[in-house]
Amino acid sequence: VFVLGIDPGLSRCGYGCVSRAGTASQVHAVGVLTTPPSDPLPTRLAALQTDLSALIADVRPDVVAVERLFFQVNVRTAMSVGQASGLVLAAAARAGCEVVQYTPNAVKQAVVGYGSATKDQVQRMVASLLGLAEPPQPPDAADALALALCHLAMAPMAARVQAAVKR
Amino acid sequence: VFVLGIDPGLSRCGYGCVSRAGTASQVHAVGVLTTPPSDPLPTRLAALQTDLSALIADVRPDVVAVERLFFQVNVRTAMSVGQASGLVLAAAARAGCEVVQYTPNAVKQAVVGYGSATKDQVQRMVASLLGLAEPPQPPDAADALALALCHLAMAPMAARVQAAVKR
Repeated sequence: VFVLGIDPGLSRCGYGCVSRAGTASQVHAVGVLTTPPSDPLPTRLAALQTDLSALIADVRPDVVAVERLFFQVNVRTAMSVGQASGLVLAAAARAGCEVVQYTPNAVKQAVVGYGSATKDQVQRMVASLLGLAEPPQPPDAADALALALCHLAMAPMAARVQAAVKR
Repeated sequence: VFVLGIDPGLSRCGYGCVSRAGTASQVHAVGVLTTPPSDPLPTRLAALQTDLSALIADVRPDVVAVERLFFQVNVRTAMSVGQASGLVLAAAARAGCEVVQYTPNAVKQAVVGYGSATKDQVQRMVASLLGLAEPPQPPDAADALALALCHLAMAPMAARVQAAVKR
């Protein structure tokens, strides 16, 4: 199963694709999509949409895991993050991927073991789980990998719950 | 000049296309794009994206006028409105349209004459300006027509300011 984690953002949209075979996780792609803050908002959103479609066509993930947004402390950027997340969810659904959303707390819980972990702890655990010498940079890319790892950790349980409900 | 006003929304996305020749405004298209609340969010956003692209390809507007969002009273729907607006802005920019945004207050100011006009006043003024016997229904469609009328009212002034700045 290829899981593409995406941390939505307009200036920097982090992505990271992870697969798991047995207990070993492997990174297939990691990076950030960027748009220049000097460009008009509609132009930036259109460029992000094009880049997202190209990324998904390239990586061909089975599942896209996206950060679930709440109203944030930073009101100024929250709207553009919301707009970017709309593009991410639409692009993933159009490509026929399974789309799942996790809150930041769920990601921390799954990756570090407790929901109030610091950014730094998450990044070091991502590096450790993926056998990387250094935490991935920039942080947006590490956050995207954490989303993918969160889904890989949660999916077996979710599948069992669903199976139990159907029974 | 064909101006397509769009009032972003996930359950109901209003649209209205208006052209002006001299002092006469004409409606070329008006309605709402809807997605079923029972569908998953990514599926709804993907469907809205497809519908928006088809609408813009059909109407071929010169300008797309979109409601500029702020944080709203209704926190529960604000995120989905933000996501929908991201799709609208990206679709318009990708189609090569000029994209402009107006706040609800600017629209009321331009259409009714004061920024604190009621919804009802806006809708009746839209009907009057466009020579319609009744306010367009649903209200989302009337709001979209109001956005288009706002741009038609504001654009000549904006062009003069821009020309003065360039001089």
